Amino acid sequence: MTALVGIDLGGTQVRAILATEDGRVLARYRTRTAPEDGPEAVMGRIVAAARTVMAQAGGLPIAGVGAGSPGPLDYRDGVVLAAPNLGWINVPLKARLEAELGLPVVVGNDANAAALAERRFGAARGVDNLVYMTVSTGIGGGIITGGRLLLGRRGFAGEIGHAAIEPHGPPCKCGNTGCLEALASGPAIARAAAERVGRGEPSVMLSLAGGDPKRITAEIVAEAARGGDSLAADVLQNAAFYIGVALVNLIHILEPELILIGGGVAHAGDLLFDTIRSVVRQRAIPCMAAQVRIEPAALGDDAGVLGAIALFLEYGRT
Amino acid sequence: MTALVGIDLGGTQVRAILATEDGRVLARYRTRTAPEDGPEAVMGRIVAAARTVMAQAGGLPIAGVGAGSPGPLDYRDGVVLAAPNLGWINVPLKARLEAELGLPVVVGNDANAAALAERRFGAARGVDNLVYMTVSTGIGGGIITGGRLLLGRRGFAGEIGHAAIEPHGPPCKCGNTGCLEALASGPAIARAAAERVGRGEPSVMLSLAGGDPKRITAEIVAEAARGGDSLAADVLQNAAFYIGVALVNLIHILEPELILIGGGVAHAGDLLFDTIRSVVRQRAIPCMAAQVRIEPAALGDDAGVLGAIALFLEYGRT
Repeated sequence: MTALVGIDLGGTQVRAILATEDGRVLARYRTRTAPEDGPEAVMGRIVAAARTVMAQAGGLPIAGVGAGSPGPLDYRDGVVLAAPNLGWINVPLKARLEAELGLPVVVGNDANAAALAERRFGAARGVDNLVYMTVSTGIGGGIITGGRLLLGRRGFAGEIGHAAIEPHGPPCKCGNTGCLEALASGPAIARAAAERVGRGEPSVMLSLAGGDPKRITAEIVAEAARGGDSLAADVLQNAAFYIGVALVNLIHILEPELILIGGGVAHAGDLLFDTIRSVVRQRAIPCMAAQVRIEPAALGDDAGVLGAIALFLEYGRT
Repeated sequence: MTALVGIDLGGTQVRAILATEDGRVLARYRTRTAPEDGPEAVMGRIVAAARTVMAQAGGLPIAGVGAGSPGPLDYRDGVVLAAPNLGWINVPLKARLEAELGLPVVVGNDANAAALAERRFGAARGVDNLVYMTVSTGIGGGIITGGRLLLGRRGFAGEIGHAAIEPHGPPCKCGNTGCLEALASGPAIARAAAERVGRGEPSVMLSLAGGDPKRITAEIVAEAARGGDSLAADVLQNAAFYIGVALVNLIHILEPELILIGGGVAHAGDLLFDTIRSVVRQRAIPCMAAQVRIEPAALGDDAGVLGAIALFLEYGRT
């Protein structure tokens, strides 16, 4: 029996866990990322978080470290090429952590890591063909096909939030036009609600946002929709329509057996999932859609740290 | 040294070759499919085509047979579930051919086979992350990722022509709305040209089609465009725009290093490829698009039979 360290590097928090190979958590630690302090300060916090959980090993040998990071990163040399939320450019995360911690380190994309975590420890056990989609501030993805993570040439694959489904639609911050992320992410949902409330459509969302439509968030939309607000429900269903269209495309391209949706927006629950499933039933080629399940992800906030451990288990041994 | 039989089962022709493992063609045969004669007659023609080329082996041992077929098919049991162009439903192609020919048989989707052929014998040698797109009567695809064919749960993956990029666009015969195939296949190109010529827009296409806009084909559009006809060029560029949008999505989802475009419409050449490459440059995330090449497929009419042989080489040995 050995232990592993999992690190989830986010724009807001750095999380670390110590866990066994079967996902039993032995220790947890979290701290603010505070990227405004600069890359060296963040690197110091990551190392401190890892050492904090490593100190709880109680004599159990530690086999290695997995780290999930946002942004495009080269999985082979473990360099984070660009992580705008962190202000990082070309940070050699793997080499730095290996030097500081004296352990082998595997670095990977956070959404890819979450897909591996759901397959190993969560809602996708035994599933060889999986699409994991996270819908929150952005829309990311991790794809498993034939039992293996779909990496692409350098590990950048799985950017399912940046597949355009309205080629003349709203601009996306990636530079493309009409991406799913520009139509159905948390900020896109909030913006759509704010515009309609701002135009005077009646909704409880206005008072939930303290009278200022600009302060409407995706959480407020979901809360209002659950409470029966029809404008909020309509905004959510529009987002769900686009998610459904994107999933039909992914079903036709990848033929998964399971699609898991995580991230904050997935908390909107049945209202979102019912519309998504209905769009898929109406639009997908029947023999490809008949047996695909579309379910909420299971691991919630632990997807990142458990995903980091799954990354190490998948790629850390030769 | 052994020989292999490759069979390409199309709606119009059945082709067979005998070739060595490195793709050297020893014998060729082709015959009409004539699906109107019924499944048994077509099966008889396939077997006869195979035996005709097998008779040319000249003592070389024949290791097995690959067969590429249209339509969704289960690659594990080799059953063609539905091939509308052939009028086939649930035809056990693998079992029938093994019984008739006394050789191991591997059956696969024709576009997947063409992708494997380009990788083994054509324009994608040494490429581990490939998207092959065929644009003709339909739009099909074969995806190779991490050096392996992306099959999905039952081998139906790769239906890139049925990814929707205009969710409120024209209906597609697959049941979905605004699929790439409904916007940029040969018939879609012909239809767009016929509509505009029928509305009175001036074009040489009208005389090329004998004065009847309904007789405009994609070949006529390409020919007119090459000759400088501006309406034909505009129609082709609209199709190329949609192909470009779809390829941006595939780049973001799959991060290929090479995209090959085959099929009759690819013969339109630079006019098509220039627009596609320009859309990709404008819209794709730079670090993912920077090194992806978009090129014409190399194998032309031989993609099917060589693909069938590649299927056997890939999956026929245990």
